[in-house]
Amino acid sequence: MSIQRPSDFGFTHQVPSGDDKPRLVCGDCGWIHYVNPKVVVGAVCSFGERVLLCRRAIEPRRGFWTLPAGFMEERETSEAGACREAMEEAGVSIAIDSLLAVYNIPRISQVQLMYRATLPGPDLAPGPESLEARLFLWDEIPWDDLAFPSVVWALNHWREVQGQSSFPAFANPPGQTGNY
Amino acid sequence: MSIQRPSDFGFTHQVPSGDDKPRLVCGDCGWIHYVNPKVVVGAVCSFGERVLLCRRAIEPRRGFWTLPAGFMEERETSEAGACREAMEEAGVSIAIDSLLAVYNIPRISQVQLMYRATLPGPDLAPGPESLEARLFLWDEIPWDDLAFPSVVWALNHWREVQGQSSFPAFANPPGQTGNY
Repeated sequence: MSIQRPSDFGFTHQVPSGDDKPRLVCGDCGWIHYVNPKVVVGAVCSFGERVLLCRRAIEPRRGFWTLPAGFMEERETSEAGACREAMEEAGVSIAIDSLLAVYNIPRISQVQLMYRATLPGPDLAPGPESLEARLFLWDEIPWDDLAFPSVVWALNHWREVQGQSSFPAFANPPGQTGNY
Repeated sequence: MSIQRPSDFGFTHQVPSGDDKPRLVCGDCGWIHYVNPKVVVGAVCSFGERVLLCRRAIEPRRGFWTLPAGFMEERETSEAGACREAMEEAGVSIAIDSLLAVYNIPRISQVQLMYRATLPGPDLAPGPESLEARLFLWDEIPWDDLAFPSVVWALNHWREVQGQSSFPAFANPPGQTGNY
């Protein structure tokens, strides 16, 4: 889907009555387009010592490796969303084990909920949003070809608590805002 | 602010080209109103043995007691949002200590990020969205007059890890979906 630009549809920034912030308001009918932070749900999924990465078939960062993750949909839980994304992008039915991290990317108003999960087996079936899906040993991870800073964070945080059954959820590494 | 109803502005449900789910589409100009889950950020804030509750001055659940919490805004982090809400609703500058819980209320497409925080002192200054703000000893908490199920969850989860410096974030209590 291409991104729809509010300005192409007659929206302009105005402060609605009773509000204290400018919002996108339709010049024709007055509809206020409120924009809220978006939730991304995903998982570091392992099979034995190996972790699942998918190579992106879509922009942004087409061709780069990422964790199965995507925008949470209406009326699903964050855990269900993370499972849905792994199914859509790698064709796998994952079992979530714990909350790995909550990351904030304020520049793009994103909250990322990343879970730790396991795969039932090594078989992968990449979906239309993935060029390929693969299991990597830690030393095989293509660090220079990862799509986003939070993919690096999540893999390192996953590694930090490997073998621990219970741990506090991580946040952004100190000083990191997720820009790239 | 009153809630704007898409049907009053000529929106109807249609499946946009290239999509697989019905979305609200404007009958005049074709603008697609995507609806995403909303993030609520809040905190259980304590001063010594007492926890902060605010009595709601707004619907829903006007007159009932709640934790300082509200919708996360664009371009803020979840921690900054939780601090902002405590300032707006109780006039307090809180110090966040850890992530207490991530709750899902799928019926209303909400993800709630609840932090554990401390207050610098006992002085409170309720804002326009609170009828009053008060510090409660555990045995004084008005359980029958709490606004939402997730307020009960967060208080009990806070109590469960009182004195622990580090703990895994909680999720919904088993079988609980947050409806009331």
